[in-house]
Amino acid sequence: MSLDTARMVQMANAIRALSMDAVQAANSGHPGMPMGMADVATVLWSEYLKHDPAAPDWADRDRFVLSAGHGSMLIYSLLHLSGYAAPTMDDIRNFRQLGSPCAGHPENFLLDGVESTTGPLGQGLAMAVGMAIAERKLNADFGDGLVDHRTWVIAGDGCLMEGINHEAIGLAGHLKLGRMNVLWDDNQITIDGGTELSTSEDIKARYAATGWHVVSCDGHDFDDIRRALDEAQADERPSLVACRTVIGKGAPNKQGTSATHGAPLGDEEISAARDVLGWDYKPFEIPEQVLSDWRGTADAGAKAHGEWSERLSADSQGAEFERRMSGDLPAKFSLDNYIQSLMKEPVKVATRKASEMALDKINAMLPDTMGGSADLTGSNNTKAGGIGPFTADDYSGRYIYYGIREFGMAAAMNGMALHGGVIPYGGTFLVFTDYCRAAIRLSALQQVRAIYVMTHDSIGLGEDGPTHQPVEHVQSLRMIPNLLVMRPADAVETAECWDIALRSKDRPAVLALSRQNLPQVRNHPEETDMSSKGAYRLKKAGNAHKVTLVASGSEVHLALACADELEKQGVGASVVSMVCTQLFDEQDEAYRKDMIPASSLRVSIEAGTTFGWERYTGENGLNIGIDSFGASAPAGDLFKKFGFTADAIVPQIMNKLNG
Amino acid sequence: MSLDTARMVQMANAIRALSMDAVQAANSGHPGMPMGMADVATVLWSEYLKHDPAAPDWADRDRFVLSAGHGSMLIYSLLHLSGYAAPTMDDIRNFRQLGSPCAGHPENFLLDGVESTTGPLGQGLAMAVGMAIAERKLNADFGDGLVDHRTWVIAGDGCLMEGINHEAIGLAGHLKLGRMNVLWDDNQITIDGGTELSTSEDIKARYAATGWHVVSCDGHDFDDIRRALDEAQADERPSLVACRTVIGKGAPNKQGTSATHGAPLGDEEISAARDVLGWDYKPFEIPEQVLSDWRGTADAGAKAHGEWSERLSADSQGAEFERRMSGDLPAKFSLDNYIQSLMKEPVKVATRKASEMALDKINAMLPDTMGGSADLTGSNNTKAGGIGPFTADDYSGRYIYYGIREFGMAAAMNGMALHGGVIPYGGTFLVFTDYCRAAIRLSALQQVRAIYVMTHDSIGLGEDGPTHQPVEHVQSLRMIPNLLVMRPADAVETAECWDIALRSKDRPAVLALSRQNLPQVRNHPEETDMSSKGAYRLKKAGNAHKVTLVASGSEVHLALACADELEKQGVGASVVSMVCTQLFDEQDEAYRKDMIPASSLRVSIEAGTTFGWERYTGENGLNIGIDSFGASAPAGDLFKKFGFTADAIVPQIMNKLNG
Repeated sequence: MSLDTARMVQMANAIRALSMDAVQAANSGHPGMPMGMADVATVLWSEYLKHDPAAPDWADRDRFVLSAGHGSMLIYSLLHLSGYAAPTMDDIRNFRQLGSPCAGHPENFLLDGVESTTGPLGQGLAMAVGMAIAERKLNADFGDGLVDHRTWVIAGDGCLMEGINHEAIGLAGHLKLGRMNVLWDDNQITIDGGTELSTSEDIKARYAATGWHVVSCDGHDFDDIRRALDEAQADERPSLVACRTVIGKGAPNKQGTSATHGAPLGDEEISAARDVLGWDYKPFEIPEQVLSDWRGTADAGAKAHGEWSERLSADSQGAEFERRMSGDLPAKFSLDNYIQSLMKEPVKVATRKASEMALDKINAMLPDTMGGSADLTGSNNTKAGGIGPFTADDYSGRYIYYGIREFGMAAAMNGMALHGGVIPYGGTFLVFTDYCRAAIRLSALQQVRAIYVMTHDSIGLGEDGPTHQPVEHVQSLRMIPNLLVMRPADAVETAECWDIALRSKDRPAVLALSRQNLPQVRNHPEETDMSSKGAYRLKKAGNAHKVTLVASGSEVHLALACADELEKQGVGASVVSMVCTQLFDEQDEAYRKDMIPASSLRVSIEAGTTFGWERYTGENGLNIGIDSFGASAPAGDLFKKFGFTADAIVPQIMNKLNG
Repeated sequence: MSLDTARMVQMANAIRALSMDAVQAANSGHPGMPMGMADVATVLWSEYLKHDPAAPDWADRDRFVLSAGHGSMLIYSLLHLSGYAAPTMDDIRNFRQLGSPCAGHPENFLLDGVESTTGPLGQGLAMAVGMAIAERKLNADFGDGLVDHRTWVIAGDGCLMEGINHEAIGLAGHLKLGRMNVLWDDNQITIDGGTELSTSEDIKARYAATGWHVVSCDGHDFDDIRRALDEAQADERPSLVACRTVIGKGAPNKQGTSATHGAPLGDEEISAARDVLGWDYKPFEIPEQVLSDWRGTADAGAKAHGEWSERLSADSQGAEFERRMSGDLPAKFSLDNYIQSLMKEPVKVATRKASEMALDKINAMLPDTMGGSADLTGSNNTKAGGIGPFTADDYSGRYIYYGIREFGMAAAMNGMALHGGVIPYGGTFLVFTDYCRAAIRLSALQQVRAIYVMTHDSIGLGEDGPTHQPVEHVQSLRMIPNLLVMRPADAVETAECWDIALRSKDRPAVLALSRQNLPQVRNHPEETDMSSKGAYRLKKAGNAHKVTLVASGSEVHLALACADELEKQGVGASVVSMVCTQLFDEQDEAYRKDMIPASSLRVSIEAGTTFGWERYTGENGLNIGIDSFGASAPAGDLFKKFGFTADAIVPQIMNKLNG
């Protein structure tokens, strides 16, 4: 039921006023987008969006993603006006100030109702694809009664121009995610000026070419917006709704120009805008009628939520649905038996294969997982445990052929994790973390459980050469806050890493896995759960402890060989497997010093950059690594060329000891 | 003039035979693409490509980019057959072996005729956009007589599915780069299987929507290929030539399937292919007639080269053209006067502004530079020195509005630098190096002079918050081999960094620049060229030297304030400005130890991750940094919150000294 136009206008003007006033108060921010999209957002939130402001975590709510995250005052206004507990008006007054949940860009960890952190352009829309995937998957598993919602996106020209847009819409079009609707703020303005400065693209034709339904509307005409949204909802394909708008609408002298995009309008222009809008209220003052109109829009959602709750109670799958959405693993989930079986019958396999073996067990036990690969399924060993493809014809599948779309895959995984109910994992070559690093960073910032299966690590990749050999990647990923980077040495550690990743609800993980076979270094059934401390002692010194070898992944067995040789020469050498520096750094000092005692010569061995290893080996330690690009050759030749043999390393250690 | 079809067939089969045999010998590689595109490549190289195998560096040659770099045996075959000095047949026999220039993927630094390193999908095509830009720019500067060539690309489905494809073709379509022709290997196969597994896109419609001319052909019909290439050459827009091919064409049992993509065919299938192709020769044997036909194709290019050389000699701009293409700066180029003027009248400006001031001088002196920004011109301060826009209507311009296309911009910069004759620089926010990191890595691997103007570094960015605040980026970029990461402290260092970057012909540079104003810390006219050693002592200890403060960029003035406070308390403290760790690491040990003596307490101060700083501060040093994500607030508040004040730092140093 629509309110009359005059009241709708004032509801939209409330957004405009809050946006221009908050940006002015902060002396920083982006008023143009919220003012331009205020009319569209008002129709969407008051008449279409299914949500319950009193219960922002309602599982069957529509997801709303402000992909053009710089227009953050739009969502802060919408949340406040429609009655969410936060942000309060004080929060809005403190827009962009220390401690306010109204941060410069919307942060999912600061406000309920902010489904995802946005701002890095293009990623919001790409995350929404993941949300729409999760919705269809859960719908297939639990039916229309429990899962039946839409994913709405507001995106700007920047979101559409970024490369990730191509990957995201290609995936959504291919998977026919018809419950995804993108409202494009077609204002023909970018920061540098008119869009004609940098693009000549027919965006609608491009979307159509990619399997999307496209509809246009006047973004300042409520009825026309309704018509377009109705069409979008009715079409079975994902929809692009091109909303022709005027950026900064309402600011009489600046609207329609890039001057409104990213700077305060100024007191004079704001005053003129108040006149034009007929908004005769003080900054941050919302008249009662407008607030009451806004608050009234929540009734439909509250009612729908109530009915849904009744269906949930009555549903035989209700408890399992709630577990899935909670993100908790089933109580009986455990890899212990599998790990014990490895202890009994050790295997020599690549850790990418070991990952597949673990996934065989995991996918059988956990209905939550949804795997995939960016067109390297056979190389990443990600299709395991008999899971079938997730396709436009069958949304019950659990494996996504992401295509050659690393960034799109990673962002979709973020969206799936944010939606909840599924645990996404996806693979590509480790070197191509460079293609999706911006999304991996958002996994970490958003505190979501996305699991990256990154195979073919280091020069062990072999013949493909330096473009495909990640020498700096493991170490550089370790620098991203809240990201678990794990480089297991064998099948046992790989299984332990999977267990850690699955149990880390608030942290993403990168598994750096080998292409080449590795001997199993863990064979003592009583030594369980060793990887969870990040690093542990795999071998004690036999002779008097003189050397501590700290290695990771494919270099751990080499460290053991070096230690054997050292012991033969009478030098006591321990070996520490550094599975995950982040977890190790979180241990107490006593543990860390015990593992890597400063009284010994500390030697790091990792087939990657040495930069950063000084943290663990000290100034007088020895760092065996690769500080150049790799080369193309069989892996064995490369390990020799780059000095990763006991014959090459042990003499350096002896020199250092004797030097 | 075309050879008869039978002889063309054998020329193409020579490529097929070399490709399947080399991959088999290496037991590794990708035979499918070279075999599928052999016919198209034979027509292109024998009848269309303007090149002189005897002079691979001829400035006016057509550029050929094998964007689908995994099909490297295609270009190795073409180079050898058409008479380039390398690769030799022995090189090809040693495909993918240590030391062979026939690496797994084509490397521009290993073979003449390989215009760019390819393999990371999508980037070859995107670099070709840069080559086509450079061609038009030099054509505008030097005329048709000296510069009049095309850029040809062979790309696969992977290159077209990657996000960067959208950015690259958007830019090329907008700039109407009609001399760029992309031959798409439309084989409907990806690694995981048929393209229908992951895409439903109408690629031709998408290209047309982006301003491209599109034409199709049967990739195994020489006349049809000629027709399509003629159409492509004739059209004023950039052209996509959709070549319908059969992957692995000639391998009777495996062709048309993903089995031919990335694995040797096996002896049996190769033998069957020999039968089908009528190729009755041993591995690596090329019959005389076929070789002679191939070598004969070089005549036209040699003749054209000869005529061009005569034009060059006669051209009044010939010497300047040769200088431009050599990559050398004009002998008189110098920033010394400008730097001395800063010494006389110190300025307090943001280093992004200092960069603009330097560019004012540089762009006026150096016609080589071509600037741009990914839609942040006013923020990156990259448009300076009165340079005008490079547009479809005016290719003489020197400033590119790249649009919101960071990755496409960086790849285009690589292509411009690879083409030669121009020095590209481009800007975005430092945090968005994550969007283009894969291209920055290729700048470093390819040893090209691309200059990245990355502004708004660290939490100094302020209100935009953690999505926009690079805390791990500077340090993680420092790990990329052969990349100069420079974080200048003031206007003088910024000018010095620009000078270093411009003079580094074989290394890319990242300038990490501040949003906020910084006081000038360098005011002694006699101290010149200090940044070139990577780090230098800005202030000596007054009292007995107890503390060495090592800082970079916006934290250098803070380090000076800390030193002042320490000196007041009787503690001698020196301050070292760490402009560029890579250059510092290249200094001799004596210099490094003198700058940061181990006898002092070594303290690093950088508003980013502490990980890695132990290299310079040792185990007992103190690392002041940020090991979490940032926050949204005014910069001043953030520096306080994260402990970047003398009041917060000095007590920590005193505790450490007394502890």
